Formats: sequence, C-alpha cells, structure tokens
Amino acid sequence: MNELRKDYFLDRWVLIAENRSKRPQDFAEEQKSKKKNGICYFCRGNEGLTPPEICRVEKKGSWTVRCFPNKFPATIPEFGKLHKNFLTRQAAYGRHEIVVETPTHGESLSDLSVDHIRDVLSVYSERIKDLKRDRKIKYVMIIKNEGLEGGASIEHSHTQIFALPIVPTLIREEIYASKRYTEKKGECPFCKIVKVESRSKRRILSDKNFIAFAPFASRFPFETWIMPKRHVTSIEFLTDEELYSFAGILKNILMRLNSLLKYPPYNFYLHVSPEKEDLHFHLELCPRVSKLGGFELGSDIVINIMPPEIAAEHYRVEV
Amino acid sequence: MNELRKDYFLDRWVLIAENRSKRPQDFAEEQKSKKKNGICYFCRGNEGLTPPEICRVEKKGSWTVRCFPNKFPATIPEFGKLHKNFLTRQAAYGRHEIVVETPTHGESLSDLSVDHIRDVLSVYSERIKDLKRDRKIKYVMIIKNEGLEGGASIEHSHTQIFALPIVPTLIREEIYASKRYTEKKGECPFCKIVKVESRSKRRILSDKNFIAFAPFASRFPFETWIMPKRHVTSIEFLTDEELYSFAGILKNILMRLNSLLKYPPYNFYLHVSPEKEDLHFHLELCPRVSKLGGFELGSDIVINIMPPEIAAEHYRVEV
Repeated sequence: MNELRKDYFLDRWVLIAENRSKRPQDFAEEQKSKKKNGICYFCRGNEGLTPPEICRVEKKGSWTVRCFPNKFPATIPEFGKLHKNFLTRQAAYGRHEIVVETPTHGESLSDLSVDHIRDVLSVYSERIKDLKRDRKIKYVMIIKNEGLEGGASIEHSHTQIFALPIVPTLIREEIYASKRYTEKKGECPFCKIVKVESRSKRRILSDKNFIAFAPFASRFPFETWIMPKRHVTSIEFLTDEELYSFAGILKNILMRLNSLLKYPPYNFYLHVSPEKEDLHFHLELCPRVSKLGGFELGSDIVINIMPPEIAAEHYRVEV
Repeated sequence: MNELRKDYFLDRWVLIAENRSKRPQDFAEEQKSKKKNGICYFCRGNEGLTPPEICRVEKKGSWTVRCFPNKFPATIPEFGKLHKNFLTRQAAYGRHEIVVETPTHGESLSDLSVDHIRDVLSVYSERIKDLKRDRKIKYVMIIKNEGLEGGASIEHSHTQIFALPIVPTLIREEIYASKRYTEKKGECPFCKIVKVESRSKRRILSDKNFIAFAPFASRFPFETWIMPKRHVTSIEFLTDEELYSFAGILKNILMRLNSLLKYPPYNFYLHVSPEKEDLHFHLELCPRVSKLGGFELGSDIVINIMPPEIAAEHYRVEV
C-alpha cells in the first residue's frame, strides 16, 4: 500500500509508492538507456488511451488543454488515519492528475500564446477549487517537471497536480515563518519581498500586477520567483487581469530562460495557501543545470555557483 | 565574495560560490557534453599538481590515502560576522579539503580492503579533530559524491571535507528533535532506532558494534544508514575496534549496493555532533537512481518507489 511516512523524529515526510516499485536491475538499466516510447498518450488523437477526462479547454471544436487522472498515481483512493507510534505513517490518500498543456508534441510551455498559457493556469485554478471540496484533502500541490534532469518521464509538455491528506512540511514552514514575521512587523513578509526586490539588482521584470526576480538565497542557478504584487493567497483569487499578467510574465521568463540556457531542464511549483491560512501566493521556478550532491543532502545547505544578482542581469539583457 | 545567505524568512541556507561562477553558455554546454580531463590530479605520480598536502597514510614507502585543500574551494579564508537586516548573510568562511581514498584511478571505495577503508575513516577523524581547533568553525561536514548523478566532477575516488562557520540546518533540526525526544522518553532516539531496526524487516546486517538498515522513511531507493550501537557523538570517539567494524560494514554495504545496482551513483555523509551537543553519530548513504523533481523541491516530501523493507530484502540476499 502506498503510504506517507514520517522520519523517525524529524518533520520530514516520504511518500512510499509501492505500486510503482521496480526490480533492482530496472534501476540499474535506466541509468544507461533513456527509453523512448513509440506512442505519446498525451498527443491529439490519442485521447482514448488516457483515463477518462476530468476537464478540457476547447478552441474551434478541438481541445487545447486537457486534464485527466494519472494512469500511475502516487496516491491511492483509500483514506486512512494517521498511525503514530514510534513510527508514524498514513495511507497516501489523494488524487494525482495530469494537465496536458498543448495537443502538439514538442511544443514547450514558452511557445504557447499568452492566452493559451492563461487557459492552462485557469485549469490549475479550477482543479484546486474542485479538489478542495473533498474535506480529507489538506493541500493541492501543482508542479511541472521539464526535461529528464527535471524528473520528467514523458516528453510531451504537461503539469502534475497532487491532492494530499497533509500540508507539506515546506508549506507549513512558510506559513509559520510568515505568521511570525507578520506578528512582529505588522506586514506580510512576501509583500515586503515584493517591495525590496522591486528596487534590487535581483529584479528581472514586472508589470502592474506581478513581479519576477531572482531570490536573494537562490538555491539553483537562474532560479526565479514570480509573485503577485497584491496580497492574494491562491491562484483562484486572482482577477482575470491578474491571471493574464501572470501568464504573460511566466511566458516572458520561460522564453528568456530557454534562450539563455538552450531549453534547460527545470521545475516549477505553485505555493498556494491552504484553507484558513494566509500565505502569499507565488510560483518558484528552478532550472536544473546543477546537481544536488552529498553536501546538499547531508546539510540542507545548497551550494549555488550563480549569484542571483548576476543571473538577473543575464535575464534582463536577454529578449 | 563567497557568502552564506539565509532565505528571506525560512531557516534555509545557501552558499553562493561566486568564485566558481560560469557563463550561461557554459551551463548550457555542460548539459550536453560530459567533459573528460586528460590528466587526473588525484593519481599517484601527480602529487605536485595538487595544493600542498595536509596529511597522508603511507604503506611501504608510498601513500595510500592523501588529504589536501580543494584547489577550487567553496569556502573563503576571510572570516566575517553575520549581517542581519531583512536579508541575512555571512562570509562563507571555512576550509574545503579533499581526501583521495586510493592512489589507483578507477578503484572504488568498495574495492579497498577493510584495513584501507579503516585508514580512510581515520583520516576523516584526524581532520575533524584538527579543524575543530579553529574556534570560528562550528561544524565539519564530511561527504562523498560518487558518479556524475551523485554530483562528482572528478572520477578518481575521493571524499570532501567542509569546515563551516555555522551548524547546518539539518544537523540543528536533528539535535533539536533528538533533545526533545530524550527529554520526553529518557532515551536517545537513535539508540531507540538501533533497537527497533535490529529486529525489523529493514535490518540489513550488523556486527557487535554497528548496524546497517534501510531507514523507515527512506528518501532514496536502497538508502542505508550505518550506525554505532553504542551512543557515540562523533567518529573521533570510536574505539579502534569500532572503527574497524565501521569500515567492514561500510565495505560490505557498498559491495552489495554495487552488485545490486551495477555501481550506481551515490552520496554518503557523516552526521557527527557539534561540540557540546549530544547527537548520536551515524552515516547516511543515498543511492542516486531516482530524480528529485518539482514535487520534492516544492513540498519537501520525497516520492520513493522502493519500500525500504523490499530494499533490505534485496540487500540481505546479495553476497
């Protein structure tokens, strides 16, 4: 059974996905050969090969964005309570969905029009709203893996949605630290970040509603955060104008990144606020051109050889 | 200047190594070509190409283990105080050293005799003792990166030693959680882990002094922890017999791992206790046959498709 397990005593969780388990020789072989499938299940025309569709965006009679359950989900449909003895575990209840961003194989997110990207973001928003209706779901995590080094096993451009029965550690830490800062200073720390980075050397670009910058303690070369200027707790609460801004800035940053690093592998993820919390919504984009080694795993300190001030300078030059 | 930077408000640190910075095109090119050097600086006969030696182990007139400063250190020699405003930073003061484990190129740590591995571990121990004499050093982190996916840029088998002006977040969390557990239960949680895992399905092997097991919340497929049964806070405080046990178990586990996964990339790191703290010393070994993607980076929850109980079963069969 797939389950969430907590470290013996640290507040760190692991999702043991037993249903996806492989033999040792499969791990060994994957190191060498990067397998390629003949058929892409995400392409237009192959809709019948995916699990039943949850929703889609249509233009002129055919879909441009599609969402359906992951055929190989990391989560399971059975809910279970938290078992806590010396060892802490809980069934990995939840949903695991796929958003195919375009019907065209080989098209990358940055190739899409701003309108099209806005539609992708709207699907994120709709899915969060819907998944949150299940009271056993405590958090919806939306992430994109691009490229093999980014952890993508399927080439066709897509996003993954995880609906989870726990609030992830990193989100809880952000909420806690954010609360503490607000109590002390009377201001949301992300609102403060927007102000500080608007006039710093780490600013990349902005419009009326959103700002993109290389964060002060960037963990990855060319890491970028995209943040609404207004204090909004989740993507669902953006106005239409703000959502369009978000799409435009995301496209702009991805185009610059792809030009600078020649379509590098990357990840991005949304940090939305759980229900009844007050976290300032934002997106974090992590290009994966560096390796996390033993120093990073053992210390949780990351060595980054690209100062964010220099990364931002490169981003600003690129057009 | 290389500096340690703290996240805006999370307790997460990044070491910005400006001196190792590259141009965007270099990152892009590295993705494609895995460079190979003609000359290996770590081989016997090329001792003159490394910075001046700090120490060595000699057998029959020639060295078997050598330690010297890293030619491209992530740390700098200038100490600086913590600057804390909205943004927190400190000069990345410290030492960054290399331990070459064998004069023979292509030999892996598991190929060495138990005596030879014991000598490598003795060098770790000696270096920690020496580096700790600098009062500005708060922690010595010892790590091994094996293979490209493990973050190794040099093929010749070696370990890295980082002497740092701060105690890494992960170590502080372990100390804090360990203290809290001990206060509540009257026992060190690692001593408890030794007891629990000695009779669990996750046990791999043990002798009188050490145990190796797949931890309950393994973050990586085939992750293994090697732990002294006695409550010891650092490698320097092991008896000669314990150190020999440690070397034997480490060799045994690495041989099994290399057999199971065909010499996979991996990392290991030591968790030793900082001065005046009481952390139970251990080594964590993380094979790197899976990728950390957006879900892991954005949530700090890791998806692992190899349950530790099954990993341990494979390890136990392998000889």
